[in-house]
Amino acid sequence: MFFQKSPAITVQELAKMIGASCEAVDVFVENVGPLDNLPKNVLACYHNSKYKNSLIDAKHGFCILKEEDRHLLPKGLVGLFSPTPYRAFGKAALYFYPLPKSTGEISNLASIHPTSLIGKNCQVEPFAVIGAHAKIGENTIIRSHCMVGERTEIGKDSLLEYGVTITSCIAGDRLYIKPGAKIGQSGFGFHMDERGHFDIPQVGCVRIGNDVQIGANTTIDRGSQHDTIIGNFCRIDNLVQIAHNVELGDGCVIVSQVGIAGSAKLGKFVIAAGQVGIAGHLNISDGVKIAAQSGLMRDVGPGETVAGSPAIPVREWHKQTIAIQRLIKK
Amino acid sequence: MFFQKSPAITVQELAKMIGASCEAVDVFVENVGPLDNLPKNVLACYHNSKYKNSLIDAKHGFCILKEEDRHLLPKGLVGLFSPTPYRAFGKAALYFYPLPKSTGEISNLASIHPTSLIGKNCQVEPFAVIGAHAKIGENTIIRSHCMVGERTEIGKDSLLEYGVTITSCIAGDRLYIKPGAKIGQSGFGFHMDERGHFDIPQVGCVRIGNDVQIGANTTIDRGSQHDTIIGNFCRIDNLVQIAHNVELGDGCVIVSQVGIAGSAKLGKFVIAAGQVGIAGHLNISDGVKIAAQSGLMRDVGPGETVAGSPAIPVREWHKQTIAIQRLIKK
Amino acid sequence: MFFQKSPAITVQELAKMIGASCEAVDVFVENVGPLDNLPKNVLACYHNSKYKNSLIDAKHGFCILKEEDRHLLPKGLVGLFSPTPYRAFGKAALYFYPLPKSTGEISNLASIHPTSLIGKNCQVEPFAVIGAHAKIGENTIIRSHCMVGERTEIGKDSLLEYGVTITSCIAGDRLYIKPGAKIGQSGFGFHMDERGHFDIPQVGCVRIGNDVQIGANTTIDRGSQHDTIIGNFCRIDNLVQIAHNVELGDGCVIVSQVGIAGSAKLGKFVIAAGQVGIAGHLNISDGVKIAAQSGLMRDVGPGETVAGSPAIPVREWHKQTIAIQRLIKK
Repeated sequence: MFFQKSPAITVQELAKMIGASCEAVDVFVENVGPLDNLPKNVLACYHNSKYKNSLIDAKHGFCILKEEDRHLLPKGLVGLFSPTPYRAFGKAALYFYPLPKSTGEISNLASIHPTSLIGKNCQVEPFAVIGAHAKIGENTIIRSHCMVGERTEIGKDSLLEYGVTITSCIAGDRLYIKPGAKIGQSGFGFHMDERGHFDIPQVGCVRIGNDVQIGANTTIDRGSQHDTIIGNFCRIDNLVQIAHNVELGDGCVIVSQVGIAGSAKLGKFVIAAGQVGIAGHLNISDGVKIAAQSGLMRDVGPGETVAGSPAIPVREWHKQTIAIQRLIKK
Repeated sequence: MFFQKSPAITVQELAKMIGASCEAVDVFVENVGPLDNLPKNVLACYHNSKYKNSLIDAKHGFCILKEEDRHLLPKGLVGLFSPTPYRAFGKAALYFYPLPKSTGEISNLASIHPTSLIGKNCQVEPFAVIGAHAKIGENTIIRSHCMVGERTEIGKDSLLEYGVTITSCIAGDRLYIKPGAKIGQSGFGFHMDERGHFDIPQVGCVRIGNDVQIGANTTIDRGSQHDTIIGNFCRIDNLVQIAHNVELGDGCVIVSQVGIAGSAKLGKFVIAAGQVGIAGHLNISDGVKIAAQSGLMRDVGPGETVAGSPAIPVREWHKQTIAIQRLIKK
Repeated sequence: MFFQKSPAITVQELAKMIGASCEAVDVFVENVGPLDNLPKNVLACYHNSKYKNSLIDAKHGFCILKEEDRHLLPKGLVGLFSPTPYRAFGKAALYFYPLPKSTGEISNLASIHPTSLIGKNCQVEPFAVIGAHAKIGENTIIRSHCMVGERTEIGKDSLLEYGVTITSCIAGDRLYIKPGAKIGQSGFGFHMDERGHFDIPQVGCVRIGNDVQIGANTTIDRGSQHDTIIGNFCRIDNLVQIAHNVELGDGCVIVSQVGIAGSAKLGKFVIAAGQVGIAGHLNISDGVKIAAQSGLMRDVGPGETVAGSPAIPVREWHKQTIAIQRLIKK
């Protein structure tokens, strides 16, 4: 109802498009959908063993799964096999529901500074504001109530959802910012003083790589003197706080309500689960995984998984949790 | 000063209106107020034993309380008796300070799509945006800087405060959304991949029942393929995160800064206190109470009260807390 | 690039301006910057021993530090001595990068109620809304997409960044609110009832002192009947929740993602680190320090430092943490 759907497609064509193998022929896939109570002609995905019963109970339709799960496939359900079923499913879903495309329309209800440079085929909606010398790449969509600050640069094929504020920022291509995110404001930097705190001017910026996604109502402060840096392919969820001078390496996944304090440095592909807190000035190495609600107070080495507050290696944390439970069973 | 007050009313009339019993007659109540230093002619409420001294010290005025607390009532203070004093107080306050009513004015500074359907007597303020085929029920107020997305439906007698974005959503009557809440954006759904994460199109919607309240800067993502569902009478506080496909049963109370991960299902009248985290795909039964800052990592049965991170039954958690304190007293 | 810089200045003039002593003469300072890889003619600051190596490795430039750290100063680096280096550095940075000044321009794309009182030399940007009888002091800047509610008062020399909503509020001078903060909405007040929760009208306001700073997407609810109070010089970070009737004494520092529940009272210069939760109706005395992620469930006496959830004196918390680690080493 809310999203326009592409027409039905044969399962062979779709399998080819998404890099999956399929033995069926001459049947049409009409849509993607969830695995439970899968309708006829709809394609689902099996990638979480929690939903094994939904797979076994399916009576018809199509399902992408791993070759190793083939034995679970019930009669009547057509299997498409892929080593990365969820990625393949994403490709199929993207066929049926393509990303929004710019209409190329610049609303005359927007306020656009004459010195700004707006690329070809951009869409700027009512009540958006674009500041002096701002640069926006081609095909980018700027929705209503957005503010793109003076001299801020956004790459091509980007989407700024409703009410985004982005200032003092240089961002790459295919940036996708969800509603209400605030990027580039001054950080929480001051000399604490009982005579009255004294603010330190925050004169860095925010540098964002390509293919980055930033969640709704998330806040990313600009650097104080260094810059705040968000690497390529980072995925940042809703209501996340990223303080001044933080650096995220490529591919980091920062789940909702995480807070990263000033000048913390995260390597590549660090995963911080929901509500994690990371103290200031820490170094978190490549590939570190941080369990939900953990509180990091020390540096973490490459590939470690940590949990707890204060955070410790996850195996120790599990032992601790069991040892504490035993305390009350004596 | 900020709110217009209704005229004074006799205590008998007021008692009748709010369903309380009162022995006094022919005295006028002029306002509602807090119990401490209660002025003459003002009505307060006693419903939290923490404020017993304020009750005992009161010299005049009116107070709603339970029959069983009658012995605490000091001389000079007029008692109004109700089995639910706070609810009765709410009714009295609502008499003195009625809800805002639509002026029926549609600002010519709003941007309203010609295909949208706006009910009788709605108020739409400057710089609000209403998308194509959106439907808004009668008497609803849409304040400045709101965005109501394409095909989104909002029931009658609703209030969208400043800067609310609501898209891909079907909502009931008497919806009340506080400033800056973002509803209906795409969820945090992607295939995690070191070659670059791959996004899964999020093509569900948000379904909201009647009489729901949503807090300031709260974020509610639309479903990925299923829908995100908020039951009737839910109360959601500020800065809450509700991820894609979450389902809240009727009457849930979700306090500030709670995060509920994707596809978690909460039953009816679940209470999650401040900063709670609930992991994805969990089932939380009817009537569950969750203490502040808890982290839920497993399903919870009907009526249980849980605490801690990871959350355990609250009695065990109390024992654990005591056992840990004893560790350092040896 | 994003900030306009004042011209170079001799080190003597600058030292005098910031209250530091310096033995060098006739050399020009051109900018402020971070200590690592300090360029020639740039002034840095040494105030965190974590960056001692950067100090020792510096080859040229200027650095503010304490007299007691003079022995660390490498040859080639010019020292400026101050008992409060970070404060002095802030003053120098403020010389090079002065606060934004009002242009005095009132956009004709703003919606300003004719009964509002706007002081001399204010700047009001496109799509800002100023309500009836609102009062704004001189030299104040109101950026795009802000909403200043009916009868709300903001003092002089203030800055409301993009998309701020402020209603039912009386605020002092030099107020600085970052993008997307929502101030003055109704609090989370209702009678919990299985027949359907019953809302209590929230008819207090928010009172904010002078020199207060409020972070991006932070939410501050108005009082229910009492007022919500923010004392002078408070610093509130991003994504903080301050519930109805909370009182902050002068100089409080509230770090990102802290949640303060209804009617909690904090004394002067209380410091709450990131993600702290403070339960309702508590009294937190002057000078209390609260470690990150702590959960306060009881009153705290003057000057105490607490940690943990539930929070206990920090020394006990350290002992507990060690005792728990020992449990699994037996």
